[in-house]
Amino acid sequence: MGDKQAEWIWYPGDFEIWLRREVELRRDERRSTIAPIWRVDSPYPVVRFRKTVKLDRAETVTFLADGALRLQIGDRTIEHPEQGVRVEAGEHAIMAQVHHLSRVPALFVQGETVFSDESWEVSHLWHTGFASAGRGGFRDPAVPPADFRLKTEPLNAVSVRREGSSLIVDFGRETFGYVRLHGIRGEGVARLVYGESEEEANDFEHGETYDELRVSERDGEEATVRHSRALRYVRVHCGEGLSVGGVSLLYEYLPLAYRGSFRSSDPQLNRIWEVSAYTFHLNAREFFLDGIKRDRWVWSGDAYQSYLMNYYLFFDMPITRRTIVALRGKDPVEHHLNTILDYTLYWFIGLDDYYRYTGDLAFIREQYGSMLRLMAFCDSRSNENGMLEGRREDWVFVDWADMDKEGELCFEQMLYCLALEAVVRFSELLGDWETEERYRPKAEKLRRDIRKTFWDEEKGAFVHRRLNGAIDPFVTKHPNMIALLYGFLEPEQIDRVKRRALLNPDVPAITTPYMRFYELAALCEIGEQSSVREEIASYWGGMLELGATSFWEEYDPAVPLPDQYAMYGRKYGKSLCHAWGASPLYLLGKYFLGVTPAKPGYEEVRIRPALGGLEWIEGRVPVPAGEVFVYMDREKIRVSIPAGTGRLQFRSGTEPVCADRRPVRLEDGGYELLIGDPGREFEVRFTPTA
Amino acid sequence: MGDKQAEWIWYPGDFEIWLRREVELRRDERRSTIAPIWRVDSPYPVVRFRKTVKLDRAETVTFLADGALRLQIGDRTIEHPEQGVRVEAGEHAIMAQVHHLSRVPALFVQGETVFSDESWEVSHLWHTGFASAGRGGFRDPAVPPADFRLKTEPLNAVSVRREGSSLIVDFGRETFGYVRLHGIRGEGVARLVYGESEEEANDFEHGETYDELRVSERDGEEATVRHSRALRYVRVHCGEGLSVGGVSLLYEYLPLAYRGSFRSSDPQLNRIWEVSAYTFHLNAREFFLDGIKRDRWVWSGDAYQSYLMNYYLFFDMPITRRTIVALRGKDPVEHHLNTILDYTLYWFIGLDDYYRYTGDLAFIREQYGSMLRLMAFCDSRSNENGMLEGRREDWVFVDWADMDKEGELCFEQMLYCLALEAVVRFSELLGDWETEERYRPKAEKLRRDIRKTFWDEEKGAFVHRRLNGAIDPFVTKHPNMIALLYGFLEPEQIDRVKRRALLNPDVPAITTPYMRFYELAALCEIGEQSSVREEIASYWGGMLELGATSFWEEYDPAVPLPDQYAMYGRKYGKSLCHAWGASPLYLLGKYFLGVTPAKPGYEEVRIRPALGGLEWIEGRVPVPAGEVFVYMDREKIRVSIPAGTGRLQFRSGTEPVCADRRPVRLEDGGYELLIGDPGREFEVRFTPTA
Repeated sequence: MGDKQAEWIWYPGDFEIWLRREVELRRDERRSTIAPIWRVDSPYPVVRFRKTVKLDRAETVTFLADGALRLQIGDRTIEHPEQGVRVEAGEHAIMAQVHHLSRVPALFVQGETVFSDESWEVSHLWHTGFASAGRGGFRDPAVPPADFRLKTEPLNAVSVRREGSSLIVDFGRETFGYVRLHGIRGEGVARLVYGESEEEANDFEHGETYDELRVSERDGEEATVRHSRALRYVRVHCGEGLSVGGVSLLYEYLPLAYRGSFRSSDPQLNRIWEVSAYTFHLNAREFFLDGIKRDRWVWSGDAYQSYLMNYYLFFDMPITRRTIVALRGKDPVEHHLNTILDYTLYWFIGLDDYYRYTGDLAFIREQYGSMLRLMAFCDSRSNENGMLEGRREDWVFVDWADMDKEGELCFEQMLYCLALEAVVRFSELLGDWETEERYRPKAEKLRRDIRKTFWDEEKGAFVHRRLNGAIDPFVTKHPNMIALLYGFLEPEQIDRVKRRALLNPDVPAITTPYMRFYELAALCEIGEQSSVREEIASYWGGMLELGATSFWEEYDPAVPLPDQYAMYGRKYGKSLCHAWGASPLYLLGKYFLGVTPAKPGYEEVRIRPALGGLEWIEGRVPVPAGEVFVYMDREKIRVSIPAGTGRLQFRSGTEPVCADRRPVRLEDGGYELLIGDPGREFEVRFTPTA
Repeated sequence: MGDKQAEWIWYPGDFEIWLRREVELRRDERRSTIAPIWRVDSPYPVVRFRKTVKLDRAETVTFLADGALRLQIGDRTIEHPEQGVRVEAGEHAIMAQVHHLSRVPALFVQGETVFSDESWEVSHLWHTGFASAGRGGFRDPAVPPADFRLKTEPLNAVSVRREGSSLIVDFGRETFGYVRLHGIRGEGVARLVYGESEEEANDFEHGETYDELRVSERDGEEATVRHSRALRYVRVHCGEGLSVGGVSLLYEYLPLAYRGSFRSSDPQLNRIWEVSAYTFHLNAREFFLDGIKRDRWVWSGDAYQSYLMNYYLFFDMPITRRTIVALRGKDPVEHHLNTILDYTLYWFIGLDDYYRYTGDLAFIREQYGSMLRLMAFCDSRSNENGMLEGRREDWVFVDWADMDKEGELCFEQMLYCLALEAVVRFSELLGDWETEERYRPKAEKLRRDIRKTFWDEEKGAFVHRRLNGAIDPFVTKHPNMIALLYGFLEPEQIDRVKRRALLNPDVPAITTPYMRFYELAALCEIGEQSSVREEIASYWGGMLELGATSFWEEYDPAVPLPDQYAMYGRKYGKSLCHAWGASPLYLLGKYFLGVTPAKPGYEEVRIRPALGGLEWIEGRVPVPAGEVFVYMDREKIRVSIPAGTGRLQFRSGTEPVCADRRPVRLEDGGYELLIGDPGREFEVRFTPTA
């Protein structure tokens, strides 16, 4: 074997499609598999890889396949390619056909100069053309992509209580993994009832998940269940003839580096950040999941927020890319992503963010064809006004909130407009002028028409929808949050929207962390960090006070504790570890530490820190080249960036002072300090404004 | 269990898609799997079945699935449905989700009044709607569709010759199956080299297929190879330590009734019919294959002719429907069927024939959506003249004949026109006026433009093509045959085309039985049965004289024998048992016995018998209700039909006589006898015309 870095290669996207299928078909509730409500896609069963190689001298090359392999070098068909093939000096066209009906057809080639990497091409339809091979860092020839597994490590319970023939086990906080039984004596069936709450574990009849495991001491004194589960508690009931000495967990997780951090003068806020990070990590697995207990499916609207949180915690782009690719699925597009209209639209906006935060145009280029086909699907369903309404078969979600969803919703049109604008932006970046010409007028018209149609001057807010040509003047926070976040407002309208929609007690309150994400982000956008801090303290702090060790799918402070666990008409239906519950990560990173990309991929960093009423804040925000450091108190700001240039923007009552260079006064009255010198810390002294 | 006929059900088309994948991935040449050059499709891995049932009294219902089953009756999830579920009296909505990643997800339900049949619905995308379940007569709960196997029976060799450590075995004629070794002694590797000719079996280096089998007397004295193969000969070479006492075959076949028949005064012609029937049967398997030795794939152009032959031999519609559905494949349409432009077009024409011969509009309705999406694909690739040219990635086949295939080929436009006309016809039958309105003008314009563009008045024939706006005046038989068969000619042009194209020795001769099919059919259409009989005698008779026991992929009488076996640059590349070699079945049934459907599904039979220079002919042609019988000699015609009405049309030099009713004189000078009375034989006496 040579020392070149060979890796497993496959048809681009097929590993993600396959893995999503694996993951989503694991939903197993009360002994029955519940498949996703959308089409389940599969990898292409037959693909061909090719490369033309030029050898200065002969070498021996080993070809491994996950699946049946047919290898041709030039005109020669090789009979036992896994035993090593001698390839003579000169130029050779290598063609490797691989087929597998239930895994990801994949190839691993290892020689001195010939080895599998992204320079290989692949096709499922070779007469129409080839694309660059997909890959994902699988460098062990013994571990093809379909053997992908998360990591595990042993975890002990913090308490085990015996009650008759049952053990009630508490792992101290929400966790995830495979329960292990120890000290098995005799033979019989162990029933394991899982609980995110102790009540759930003790309620076999209503608990969401359980396992039954037949064990015998003759097979050893330890046994591990087959399914990994979300739990804090597990109640292990030993059937007749069986006793169990102890219970532990094989904790299962995706190894990720905690690159982002946040600390402040408020210990409760610090605890909220930590629990958010833990909640987020539990849900960041093969893909960004919605929640770890219940469906464990990949939902585009949930994932969209996870992408954003990820930019402020792990900045792990492989999981973001896996999720984007898996969500898009295969052609033909027959339904909205997850069957939800808004969820299709978030997919485009997520790509747009991805490019801004990473600057990775190569990935955009890879997804571009898929993106256009998905947009063509939306376009084909837009009505005579160029707007999207839910059709009979579409799910118009928006939020778990009480609102009518028929007709042209202002909220959906705003997302559609952002999606169209993302397509236009990418078409420009990639020089696809035909697409630009097709969608730019649609995007521009829609932005105008949204304002013309839904802006209610009297109410000072965007209204909910139009149905059969008539405006429904109901005001919800939803479109107004999006309007604030994405520039649908004239400067003079901002304050009115804030008072009349966002902070108006007559407008129905948001009850999901999912939509609180946008609500609080919108408030931060208009400088309301102080009230956002108070909201975080009361809302997320409220969950902590109820004993939460991870954040929930939904939380209404008015509901008493045992009823908090119910949702969907099920006693323990609510997920107590839901990705969208972790949004303080994003809010604190983006709007308190204040770090955002001023140019794609953080080539230029913008830092606009805000104390929001705290004594001090300190933290790191991951960017492609390292971490941005930010410290702020009422007298000074200290920042450093790992690469490129940065603009530190802040307000000061007096002329600010910096030892290195002079801050510049901006038109809006604030100051800006240009920073560079990667790694070097800059300090600015200032005085707070009123 | 009740006595109702439950059967396995699945997503419509998915059994065929799955079976095609199984069959086409069996291509194994010299120890290497060669996958099809087109996209290999798979069934949907997850589907849901549903039915609402009303029970007068409670009953026990058993639910079996091929795959993982989740069963819900009303709101209740059933934990062990395979053990029988008690369903109470009243109305219940049953929902069964089944998933399987490599087989066909399928369901079998058996109760007293509740059982799986076509009244169940199924979906891969349940929020968008459900369709009637697919089914195929799988009534044994122990044999789900993915266990489908052809029948086998033992077949002995006609001669076994020993040569050193080899046995050279001859089965007397072309056959197909699993070779069995008997009287195994010792232990070692047997190498089996298959031959459609003896030369091939004796030429290990160049033979197309071989197997190696490690056997030992300790495992029994018999062993059977894993792959079924095409062969007449097999040479079994025993490696060191091994001896074999005898060799036989497990003949593998699709059980089909020989409903059609043909006999005449010419023994050679009778032999040609029989060898054709045998050739055809060997290739009529899971699907209509092109040939049994080499690729064993499903090719639309080949299958199109098989559909037509089938109407005159087996009239087995399940295999026709399986082939049509499998060929169409899944969406999205990314390439032409088999990647070949003409092969997409034959698919439409095949459906058109299917409806004419069977009257089965239900199947047309099932395929209608797929048909429209395939036509939309063609339409999207038509040029500014509304014509189809091969693109870089398309294979424009037409025939294995020497011709340029760039640009607008007259032959392809004729097929495209017929395909468009089929779509228009079906849209009318199904009342889809939007489609009718879309394609009728295109079809009419194309028919006009073909004549305007390609008819050469001076040459008296259709010319080959137009390239970059310029006509290529080359004349081939191909478009002219199609013109004669499908009404592209004015009556006064017919005789010119016959002389200037079809019978003109300066026009390149046809060398494949594939195109001889159309050539000879076209000659029959213009009353040239006598010369067609002579052609059959010399061309197919020529193969018999060279020892053929089944008809070939290609035959050029000028080539000497051992070279006949070569094709594609390979010494034994030619298939010696090729479906398209069996066309005398069609020619003799349609143009000599003269039986065709005058109304869809043979509601009215047209019989126009022709002796073509023979003393007498006799035979049966299958129709949905039974068989049409025809006898003719130089004095009389005898016919009977199994159902409906019929029109016997013939010519006579004097007034013809029928005991039952009086033949009517037709405008063209011929006579017509209306017949009815299913089963009754009518006899007409006539005198031959000059």
